[in-house]
Amino acid sequence: MTTVGIVAEYNPFHNGHAYQIKQAKEMTGADTVVVVMSGNFVQRGEPALLDKWTRAKLAVEGGADLVVELPVFYAVQPSHLFAQGAVRLLGAMGVENLVFGSEHPDVDFLKLADEAPALEGQQGFADKKQTFAANYADQLEEATGFKLEDPNDILAFGYAKAVRELKLDMKLWPMARLEAGYHDQTFEEGQTIASASSIRLALHKGKFEKIDKVVPEETKKALAEENTTINFEEKFFPLIQYRALTDTVGQLGQVYQMAEGLEYRVAAVASQANGPQNYQSFVRAIKSKRYTFARMQRTLLYTLLNIKVDQMQAAMQDPYLRILAFDQKGQTFLNEIKKTVELPLISRVDMSLAKANLRLDYKAGEVWKLLAREGGPAQDVGRRPIQIEK
Amino acid sequence: MTTVGIVAEYNPFHNGHAYQIKQAKEMTGADTVVVVMSGNFVQRGEPALLDKWTRAKLAVEGGADLVVELPVFYAVQPSHLFAQGAVRLLGAMGVENLVFGSEHPDVDFLKLADEAPALEGQQGFADKKQTFAANYADQLEEATGFKLEDPNDILAFGYAKAVRELKLDMKLWPMARLEAGYHDQTFEEGQTIASASSIRLALHKGKFEKIDKVVPEETKKALAEENTTINFEEKFFPLIQYRALTDTVGQLGQVYQMAEGLEYRVAAVASQANGPQNYQSFVRAIKSKRYTFARMQRTLLYTLLNIKVDQMQAAMQDPYLRILAFDQKGQTFLNEIKKTVELPLISRVDMSLAKANLRLDYKAGEVWKLLAREGGPAQDVGRRPIQIEK
Repeated sequence: MTTVGIVAEYNPFHNGHAYQIKQAKEMTGADTVVVVMSGNFVQRGEPALLDKWTRAKLAVEGGADLVVELPVFYAVQPSHLFAQGAVRLLGAMGVENLVFGSEHPDVDFLKLADEAPALEGQQGFADKKQTFAANYADQLEEATGFKLEDPNDILAFGYAKAVRELKLDMKLWPMARLEAGYHDQTFEEGQTIASASSIRLALHKGKFEKIDKVVPEETKKALAEENTTINFEEKFFPLIQYRALTDTVGQLGQVYQMAEGLEYRVAAVASQANGPQNYQSFVRAIKSKRYTFARMQRTLLYTLLNIKVDQMQAAMQDPYLRILAFDQKGQTFLNEIKKTVELPLISRVDMSLAKANLRLDYKAGEVWKLLAREGGPAQDVGRRPIQIEK
Repeated sequence: MTTVGIVAEYNPFHNGHAYQIKQAKEMTGADTVVVVMSGNFVQRGEPALLDKWTRAKLAVEGGADLVVELPVFYAVQPSHLFAQGAVRLLGAMGVENLVFGSEHPDVDFLKLADEAPALEGQQGFADKKQTFAANYADQLEEATGFKLEDPNDILAFGYAKAVRELKLDMKLWPMARLEAGYHDQTFEEGQTIASASSIRLALHKGKFEKIDKVVPEETKKALAEENTTINFEEKFFPLIQYRALTDTVGQLGQVYQMAEGLEYRVAAVASQANGPQNYQSFVRAIKSKRYTFARMQRTLLYTLLNIKVDQMQAAMQDPYLRILAFDQKGQTFLNEIKKTVELPLISRVDMSLAKANLRLDYKAGEVWKLLAREGGPAQDVGRRPIQIEK
């Protein structure tokens, strides 16, 4: 049994993802595909369109053999922590290969990681007017000659750094992305591969018929069952305003990544008489040049979830493997590793676990429901992994 | 200049209130009517139909000369603390008379207060299956022979106790209520006086035309401008669920009046997979026989406002006189007292005051807007008292 890992959000699962799974097996010769997938919130700090169970099911139907949840404390993080968390889970399961998209598939990312300057000491960056990531990219280019600026390359570099830090024996397989670029917002008729963000945009605009050719039939069905026309921001905005208005600045200041006095801006913006009228404007109103829009969205999500620094740090030290879905091959793999795996394998969650180790994912699931699907099925307590017969 | 005080909620201001103001002047011979009125939330822990400015304006138009806000830390309290807070404000202004409705206007409430057993030591009540108020009423009946069970009598007794405790020279004038009983939920055609709760019920049912005869023209206009068909509970419920889901039990346990492990019930009910589907059921699900429905609503309002025990206690020690509206006579009265009044007279609030002494009222105003009138005018910062020329 040879395994290949993929780190994904599948928001939503589309033809490009199915193609990547197929390619991953061909490239590596692996027979089993293990996916580590974000849960109910994605890296940019936004709720996923479909819940984690539905997305995991679609992934197994689309070719994956096992889907494990990337817990919210790794999933909603800057790319280097996101990558590190995902690689930690794959490493714990002994996954031998990792396939990922890259804008520069010829680059040896492990070598790049070896030559890269240390990531610590961000405080010392010369240019205070650009983001931390841009400052680090400058340092890296100086040291190695490679300009780390494309989104998939940045993640690829994160995977390589993590493989080194965790001293894993994991082979990295960068893969050119077939689909349109990560940030492409449109796709043409006749196209069968499109980026997830262009698909979300089409859905957001209510152009449901446009996604016909670019997602599997099952994804289309699942999206039709959810009310994808609901804009989560309409619900997100009053809740974040409410939280910012009712918590003291002291309480807001304890939220994870609420750095450099940001809590004062959050409280002040929420109190403005003629303040922002929607969530996007709220994010823009608190943002400075030092931070990306995504970073601000993540911080507001932590605020919404009321996740404090100490809770986040404790959770990151204590990860687990939450099994969401598998097929027969996935089950065989789980049986093989269950005696040796270094992290807890979790296939059933009761309320006491939901209130202990899994409390951040539990909270995220409950709040996801408030935002996206009130009255929908429980996200954690009592749920069993989905088994797909192929 | 002789003054008479009235303690009110005016939710909304109706013909019975106008009649009471007229009667209060006639009974006492006073020339100036000073009203202490709840702000944006009323004693039962619910948002008022109209904001405090509109209600104060309607009161002055309806015969009052001055309306001072009863701050949220006094207004949203069990009746004895509500009464005590109101009497404290009236006493600080040197108001000489207090007129109030009572089911037993012949009772000498000051005498009753003198003969009453101490209110402290509620823990020692024998019957754990009834509310604290009912237990105290039993004790009082034993000591005095008077059964304190009607809502206006209970408040009247609270005023009398406060007058004694604060050693005030204030004359009490119980007055029979003309209108239907406090709890009457219906009124007939042709009736010109109806209870506020029956008026709210008619509005809630969308029977706007029914209130025609029982409220002044100005109240009708104000209610027509607000969208009175919006049920605030639709907004209250998701926010309270959100708060209960995202705060830790430790945080919930610090909320004012979250006693005897109630925080565990609140958290558990919010987490139930098939939990309450609306706010009323939520309140019922956490309620025990020891507590009234109103008490639970108040506790959930403190939870919604995120008001902790220490903040509440500090605020109650540090009250102020927030002027909402007045006419010429009210202005003359204010000029007379401003040099001698024992509490701060506040006619203008800036952000620093809103974040200091007035922070609980400020928070209440902002949350009231979220619940009842998003995008409505500021409730505190920058607002000046409303002056009515008569």
